[in-house]
Amino acid sequence: MRTPLPDYLTEVLEVCGTDSSGELAAYIPELAAADPDRLALGLCTVDGTGYAVGDDAVRFSIQSISKPFAYALALADLGLDAVLAKVGVEPSGEAFNELSLEEDSGRPLNPMINAGAITVHALVGMDRVRRGFAAFAGRELAVDDEVSSSELATADRNRAIAYMLRNHGIVEDDPQEVVAGYTEQCSLLVDVADLAAMAATLANGGVQPVTGEEVVPRWVARQVLSVMATCGMYDAAGDWFTTVGIPAKSGVSGGLIGALPGRAGLAVFSPRLDQHGNSVRGVQVFERLSTDMGMHLMEVPPPARSLVRERAPLPTGDGHGEVFELQGSVDFVGMERFLRELADEAPSESAVVLDLTRVHEVRDVGRRMLLEGARRLSLDGHRVEFVDPDGMLAAFPDGDSGPGEGDADGDGRPDGAESAADDPLVDVGDGIQARVRRRR
Amino acid sequence: MRTPLPDYLTEVLEVCGTDSSGELAAYIPELAAADPDRLALGLCTVDGTGYAVGDDAVRFSIQSISKPFAYALALADLGLDAVLAKVGVEPSGEAFNELSLEEDSGRPLNPMINAGAITVHALVGMDRVRRGFAAFAGRELAVDDEVSSSELATADRNRAIAYMLRNHGIVEDDPQEVVAGYTEQCSLLVDVADLAAMAATLANGGVQPVTGEEVVPRWVARQVLSVMATCGMYDAAGDWFTTVGIPAKSGVSGGLIGALPGRAGLAVFSPRLDQHGNSVRGVQVFERLSTDMGMHLMEVPPPARSLVRERAPLPTGDGHGEVFELQGSVDFVGMERFLRELADEAPSESAVVLDLTRVHEVRDVGRRMLLEGARRLSLDGHRVEFVDPDGMLAAFPDGDSGPGEGDADGDGRPDGAESAADDPLVDVGDGIQARVRRRR
Amino acid sequence: MRTPLPDYLTEVLEVCGTDSSGELAAYIPELAAADPDRLALGLCTVDGTGYAVGDDAVRFSIQSISKPFAYALALADLGLDAVLAKVGVEPSGEAFNELSLEEDSGRPLNPMINAGAITVHALVGMDRVRRGFAAFAGRELAVDDEVSSSELATADRNRAIAYMLRNHGIVEDDPQEVVAGYTEQCSLLVDVADLAAMAATLANGGVQPVTGEEVVPRWVARQVLSVMATCGMYDAAGDWFTTVGIPAKSGVSGGLIGALPGRAGLAVFSPRLDQHGNSVRGVQVFERLSTDMGMHLMEVPPPARSLVRERAPLPTGDGHGEVFELQGSVDFVGMERFLRELADEAPSESAVVLDLTRVHEVRDVGRRMLLEGARRLSLDGHRVEFVDPDGMLAAFPDGDSGPGEGDADGDGRPDGAESAADDPLVDVGDGIQARVRRRR
Amino acid sequence: MRTPLPDYLTEVLEVCGTDSSGELAAYIPELAAADPDRLALGLCTVDGTGYAVGDDAVRFSIQSISKPFAYALALADLGLDAVLAKVGVEPSGEAFNELSLEEDSGRPLNPMINAGAITVHALVGMDRVRRGFAAFAGRELAVDDEVSSSELATADRNRAIAYMLRNHGIVEDDPQEVVAGYTEQCSLLVDVADLAAMAATLANGGVQPVTGEEVVPRWVARQVLSVMATCGMYDAAGDWFTTVGIPAKSGVSGGLIGALPGRAGLAVFSPRLDQHGNSVRGVQVFERLSTDMGMHLMEVPPPARSLVRERAPLPTGDGHGEVFELQGSVDFVGMERFLRELADEAPSESAVVLDLTRVHEVRDVGRRMLLEGARRLSLDGHRVEFVDPDGMLAAFPDGDSGPGEGDADGDGRPDGAESAADDPLVDVGDGIQARVRRRR
Repeated sequence: MRTPLPDYLTEVLEVCGTDSSGELAAYIPELAAADPDRLALGLCTVDGTGYAVGDDAVRFSIQSISKPFAYALALADLGLDAVLAKVGVEPSGEAFNELSLEEDSGRPLNPMINAGAITVHALVGMDRVRRGFAAFAGRELAVDDEVSSSELATADRNRAIAYMLRNHGIVEDDPQEVVAGYTEQCSLLVDVADLAAMAATLANGGVQPVTGEEVVPRWVARQVLSVMATCGMYDAAGDWFTTVGIPAKSGVSGGLIGALPGRAGLAVFSPRLDQHGNSVRGVQVFERLSTDMGMHLMEVPPPARSLVRERAPLPTGDGHGEVFELQGSVDFVGMERFLRELADEAPSESAVVLDLTRVHEVRDVGRRMLLEGARRLSLDGHRVEFVDPDGMLAAFPDGDSGPGEGDADGDGRPDGAESAADDPLVDVGDGIQARVRRRR
Repeated sequence: MRTPLPDYLTEVLEVCGTDSSGELAAYIPELAAADPDRLALGLCTVDGTGYAVGDDAVRFSIQSISKPFAYALALADLGLDAVLAKVGVEPSGEAFNELSLEEDSGRPLNPMINAGAITVHALVGMDRVRRGFAAFAGRELAVDDEVSSSELATADRNRAIAYMLRNHGIVEDDPQEVVAGYTEQCSLLVDVADLAAMAATLANGGVQPVTGEEVVPRWVARQVLSVMATCGMYDAAGDWFTTVGIPAKSGVSGGLIGALPGRAGLAVFSPRLDQHGNSVRGVQVFERLSTDMGMHLMEVPPPARSLVRERAPLPTGDGHGEVFELQGSVDFVGMERFLRELADEAPSESAVVLDLTRVHEVRDVGRRMLLEGARRLSLDGHRVEFVDPDGMLAAFPDGDSGPGEGDADGDGRPDGAESAADDPLVDVGDGIQARVRRRR
Repeated sequence: MRTPLPDYLTEVLEVCGTDSSGELAAYIPELAAADPDRLALGLCTVDGTGYAVGDDAVRFSIQSISKPFAYALALADLGLDAVLAKVGVEPSGEAFNELSLEEDSGRPLNPMINAGAITVHALVGMDRVRRGFAAFAGRELAVDDEVSSSELATADRNRAIAYMLRNHGIVEDDPQEVVAGYTEQCSLLVDVADLAAMAATLANGGVQPVTGEEVVPRWVARQVLSVMATCGMYDAAGDWFTTVGIPAKSGVSGGLIGALPGRAGLAVFSPRLDQHGNSVRGVQVFERLSTDMGMHLMEVPPPARSLVRERAPLPTGDGHGEVFELQGSVDFVGMERFLRELADEAPSESAVVLDLTRVHEVRDVGRRMLLEGARRLSLDGHRVEFVDPDGMLAAFPDGDSGPGEGDADGDGRPDGAESAADDPLVDVGDGIQARVRRRR
Repeated sequence: MRTPLPDYLTEVLEVCGTDSSGELAAYIPELAAADPDRLALGLCTVDGTGYAVGDDAVRFSIQSISKPFAYALALADLGLDAVLAKVGVEPSGEAFNELSLEEDSGRPLNPMINAGAITVHALVGMDRVRRGFAAFAGRELAVDDEVSSSELATADRNRAIAYMLRNHGIVEDDPQEVVAGYTEQCSLLVDVADLAAMAATLANGGVQPVTGEEVVPRWVARQVLSVMATCGMYDAAGDWFTTVGIPAKSGVSGGLIGALPGRAGLAVFSPRLDQHGNSVRGVQVFERLSTDMGMHLMEVPPPARSLVRERAPLPTGDGHGEVFELQGSVDFVGMERFLRELADEAPSESAVVLDLTRVHEVRDVGRRMLLEGARRLSLDGHRVEFVDPDGMLAAFPDGDSGPGEGDADGDGRPDGAESAADDPLVDVGDGIQARVRRRR
């Protein structure tokens, strides 16, 4: 069979493709000469599968969509505090070409406006941008020299910004060189598949889902997504967040990306822009995807099933006791409820078996709560035993780790769990240990 | 055993409780006379369990925390467009007492600043606020008459705003009465348990988790949470969203709420305020909870395990075929991967069994993709059969439905699934049907 | 003969009368119902002669033209510092209905915007406005009750401002009453003759030129004229000052006044307004008058003739000496030059006669310089004698005095000079005296 | 004798010299190294006499005081409209280093802020500035190369402004070169005598009072003085205009100039600056001079004496008639009154003699009114005759002419008047002529 995904994505393009309103960016001939009817959509999942439909072969200059990625590189290289000292994180409520500098310090309000992006570029430099963007996209990106020199010829506003930034001590390098570099950054050629992969890297905690390379640390991805959520869509941030609810960034050449944390990266290309400078059909595609796929960050998912699938007496012959068959994700919400149930109706028998066979995920806070429950049951005189055939209890080293650390084979089961000796003991606190059965 | 949750929450309070910086709000005697050392924390899960620790018996005036709830009532009563015509959704980047009206229209920028909140109050009126807030909190709330009359005596700024709003035609009622009503709204007495329940109602798609009442529709809850995310923390919105990443709202009496979509509502009370007007220790508690509990909206969860747990030949005696044992959540991401696997490596045998026994959730988009996959397999000549002992395939009527609609018993399994006849057929499109086995 | 002045003024009206662009103020029916073609011009000289041509019988509400006069009353009653504590003097660069309050203090930027004018009204009250305006105009002014109640019904913006001012402690009275009073102030009925007389009072140092009453002190008139010069024409202050160069104030009913210090008050009435809210034809009339009459404050007058008309030997028989026949105004500039001539070419003879017969004015600084010159000549051994048939040397008590003080008969010669004994002595410093001949 | 002027000016310096508050400009070493105690005062009259006291030998860079003079050159070279298209005339209410560009056009608000001054410099170029400033000062001015290169090294803000201006199409030249030129302009070395002469040129209608050269036309001087009046003192414009009332401009090196239209130019040098960037003692000296010398533009001068000194019957033997002996200045105000007197009390006899012997000035509008009066008297049947021994009636060609045009000998009497034939006729309109007697 053929996977229906491309059909689904193509259908979305067809629905949104009829709108021919909006205008091409006109400040350089290269953008004004774009074919206004081009429309493409790319999607890249966090496990590295990419789809691209429509005019997906068209390459275009990345423009402002480069901003979040350069910001990510700066954060990764210099750390949060050093970057915050130069660029803030507050929405400006202004168009992208406003100065938007803090009154006294001259610090740009956020990295998604030009002043912030120029500052960020000065922090990392074009070499790092080239290398970093290649890591994000999973391939080398070329600079469109015509776009670059055309933009450089009309970059007076950016030069003004760069000199103002050096005046405030925010930028220290030669403003002309910084602007030249920033213009090159904006002229890197991408297609929707590239952008979807780049967005997916942010959605995937900084790990490029195809190459598996950790391009930036997990905390960097979180910071960048947060700033995209509040500052990514210029002066329409509130409107975007209420209607679409996906961290996003648009560019003047008609690109628009979105990142769904833990799920996928999305990219649309359609050159006609609305009055905010965002792609008209790009916005429509995102609205459609958000509604259809339930991707709004504030969309409340249907309540998960109870963590406890079944509470049953031990099978005959296993002695007096009770089995709690858990399912789904062992997280804060589920554990809170389970612990409450244990408190409300204490197990009547001496043996308590916690069966994790149907559990598919153990969050860090959930594991801690589970072990604390086991400790308290032990203190109450119960003998606690885990059934954990898939080794879910073996914790990730810490809450920030992602694939590649502790789960090199990507099967969702911590490394080593598969080959661990049967029936080990796990320490639940106060020197108390519980047995872990590796078979059901 | 005793559930460790209160201990955990108390521990957080102890860690954050030592900071005595910040100042009490001083503009009315009642706020200035608050005990600055009070500290309380409440949590209410979306399944209706509440915890409250610290000085949780203290009641205080709700103040600006009333804003999102009045906004929710206005949206529910008048619809989105009618409310948007009066109040925008863009962050103002300004302190709470700025006018922040759009230049020509006079429309307040968002409902979290005073101008917006006064407009919202005028739209719904105090009676509706009383009834609606009682529904959010799950109990009647009383007005603190002393706070109310004291605030009314110093409400000249709000009167100025209200007259300016009437001047622009945004408010039509008598400004004096609107301000009097709004002042009453702000003087409603709450404790952290109330606020946690109110926030949990938003987190739960508008359904009060204790009473089960749908206070506002699901889309209203999403809209309110979105606006809280971008406009809830005054001029520190970006800082809050990057560090805490939870939709929130603070009040001048020292309250601070947060709502975790689909999970829980949180509330802290600590009267000393920072320069933004937010509770000093309230912010710290939230930072702590966000880090500890992985509650940041942009926090990428560890990748879910593959939807396909196992791919195996049919057990002997069942004929030639292949079994795909699915697990976890059937959503877009998982289905995308599964469909790709089917495309990459087509089943070799005629029979295909899709076993949903270990699936704990089927999202709407996932169900559609699953059925489309079955359709395509059928067209390729396969005989498709589902194993669905828990009735997961019986779809929710639509993606917006929540508990109480189609799942009245709240067990996470759609109503009727439990008592459905065994082995029904499901239509997968093009007139093709697949058998659904109700036992494994 | 008939004086040609009315013909001249009528001619100006005819030239400017053809422009029918602009729009009537429409926010209350009374203003919208005005006859848009009305055009009138009034002029009142500082010696109290009034001219009024065109539709000079039409009375209209004074509106914002009341602002400088109420400001003058506040200054006169409370003193400069007390008023400055409440209202600044800086141009706002904004339209008349902006708030334009200083950021922290809430002090209105100047008294010509509504916020400042409302504050000023609160300082003086309506009774004082009635009495004071009657003194400015030389007759009682009536309130147009219909205009007043119509404006009061739509005064929400002013109410907003008044509450904001009380919020900042700038206004202490009940905002509703302040706005009611201010609205009455704006509804006082005037014609162009009234306004010309009021403006002439400011131009005349605070003394009503017809009644001779000192309505406000000289320093108040100077302060008010200064503020009119920089803040009188809303957001077109710079344009007005460069092209017309006359301190002015306009009102929404179509009035426009200008005050030429020391010369005259002018008033035009023509109801159609430009986008700044200034009378279209009123502005044109002022431009015309400024050009024709050389009234621009920065217009450099042709250089005055030398103060020394003739330097000649004493008539035979009067002994050895030199006569200096002075002419025109004995002011700083003239005296500087004369003293320089005396220094460059010292009188050769022992007697020096300073003949003031052709002098028509002695400024205070000029008198001091003249006496200092006489002292130095005396110290050099000369015998100095003044010829002063008109008693010009008898100084005004100080530089701030005006008519009515020391020149009650208004002939330009200080009182008492006329009846002084012939040939008195004048003290020129260091105990040196000079003879003053009262005949030529 | 010695003229007391220097003593007077020195006395003012002594009174103001004790204040040592304020701070030196510190952004370049050359300014920070200035001797903070230096204090100098210069005065130059419109007839070309200069005084300079205190540390008048100290030369300093002209800095922002160059702005009005470069603006004057631009106006003279390009005309008013061409300059207005690039730079406005509205006060900015902001500090000197704000951008203050109009929102859409990018046009600087006025030529006294840096953005406006840079634009003006680009319009004229450094060669024109050098030549023009030499003409204003009456001598070649040298550039302080150290100051210039030091400022150029820290001119990033100005570069930012220049690039922003080119971005808006306001500046077309290379921004780097424009800033380099502007920095040179600001580094021209002057002393207080130079600045006083430059200011005096503006005060004298554009004619350098020492050299007699018309540096700029009269209308340009008026335009520049108007803009200095409203925009010259940065964000303290209103405060300055109310208290001092003299068009002025200050510079960061401690200079401060003022121009008294028709009277004199003033300059103070004292390097310590207040928070607005204006010289502390410079401001004090101006306040003192304004008060002492009655130089406030809104200061109402004591009313001039009546234009009619005496009204008497013709001396016996001259036939039946009446003589009107006029005095002082024949201007609008005086003529208005005289014409009114003629209207109120018509001459009873057939002959009317208008004796101008004591008149020292005839303004253009006054001459027109005088001739119109003569025409009307003629029409009423009177025989009108002028006595005009000094040829005052021979009009200047137009109201804009100054010395050098029509009065080359500078005696205040129009050229040719002296040598005119006795008893010519003057045309008073309608073909009517009046005899002009050249002797009394």
